[in-house]
Amino acid sequence: MPFVHVELLEGKTLEQKREMAKGITDVIVKAGGVNPDSVYVIFKDLAKTELAKAGQLIADKQ
Amino acid sequence: MPFVHVELLEGKTLEQKREMAKGITDVIVKAGGVNPDSVYVIFKDLAKTELAKAGQLIADKQ
Amino acid sequence: MPFVHVELLEGKTLEQKREMAKGITDVIVKAGGVNPDSVYVIFKDLAKTELAKAGQLIADKQ
Amino acid sequence: MPFVHVELLEGKTLEQKREMAKGITDVIVKAGGVNPDSVYVIFKDLAKTELAKAGQLIADKQ
Amino acid sequence: MPFVHVELLEGKTLEQKREMAKGITDVIVKAGGVNPDSVYVIFKDLAKTELAKAGQLIADKQ
Amino acid sequence: MPFVHVELLEGKTLEQKREMAKGITDVIVKAGGVNPDSVYVIFKDLAKTELAKAGQLIADKQ
Repeated sequence: MPFVHVELLEGKTLEQKREMAKGITDVIVKAGGVNPDSVYVIFKDLAKTELAKAGQLIADKQ
Repeated sequence: MPFVHVELLEGKTLEQKREMAKGITDVIVKAGGVNPDSVYVIFKDLAKTELAKAGQLIADKQ
Repeated sequence: MPFVHVELLEGKTLEQKREMAKGITDVIVKAGGVNPDSVYVIFKDLAKTELAKAGQLIADKQ
Repeated sequence: MPFVHVELLEGKTLEQKREMAKGITDVIVKAGGVNPDSVYVIFKDLAKTELAKAGQLIADKQ
Repeated sequence: MPFVHVELLEGKTLEQKREMAKGITDVIVKAGGVNPDSVYVIFKDLAKTELAKAGQLIADKQ
Repeated sequence: MPFVHVELLEGKTLEQKREMAKGITDVIVKAGGVNPDSVYVIFKDLAKTELAKAGQLIADKQ
């Protein structure tokens, strides 16, 4: 606690996720005054066939 | 916003998901009076080994 | 199963939620060929202080 | 209802998940006085590259 | 990690949640071979107006 | 998309949430190369009676 679930369109590199994990944790530690060890960040990649906006799959928008 | 997460047993076709994405969005736009562009639908397929009912994995019920 | 979690900005009436629950279920039954009894819709109201877009709380955008 | 989402580091065997599904359901039925048929347990495996603690991916901690 | 999100119809007592938290954690520790300190259980109460089954709000089924 | 769900122990001020929303969005925009307008941050406050660690409610640990 805190738990941070990040849903992203698939395609982000491991390096980008490292940067996000570190950055998000730093923000929450600084703003929330919590112990870094208590901060969990969970990434969830979404395929373009798993996400729709305005009724249309992202895969179909390309 | 609104965000709609739909958890389904895996096996639905892309066409079925297209129909669900469109239909769910239309329902929310009509009933909720929101802008279609603000409606996100996220699909999550569940394998039969990832879902249990009454204490038993669906995979073991077949 | 299927489970549908709908996150909405707070303020929708009970009647609007009834219409969404019915409509979403009908869409999933028709498109997914599933038993209506197996479809659960869960509503989650979000206050304008609980949702941020582009780094700004919706409450601060008014 | 109740719905129980269990996020686990990947690597648990099917047998372990069977035991968890049965055990969690029994606990909820006994403590909550609910019908076993109404209890759903959903497992979500997380890769070590999808979970970070204290700003570092678990994959990078080994 | 593991994170266990438990969605329940509102009305369970604190004592029932204590029993569930303890029981679920014991099950996961035993079956999953994980450290008890790493197990988080998160309860989410749902009002009968927030949950629908077969297209009907639970509140309307009584 | 991206959607960031942040579960926090209740008690954080609105100002702290503003800082987190802004900071998290900036991190994701910079690291992920996404449009700020596409980033949603959703806060979920947890009461100490809704969260358990190592089988014990946080409310009972004080």
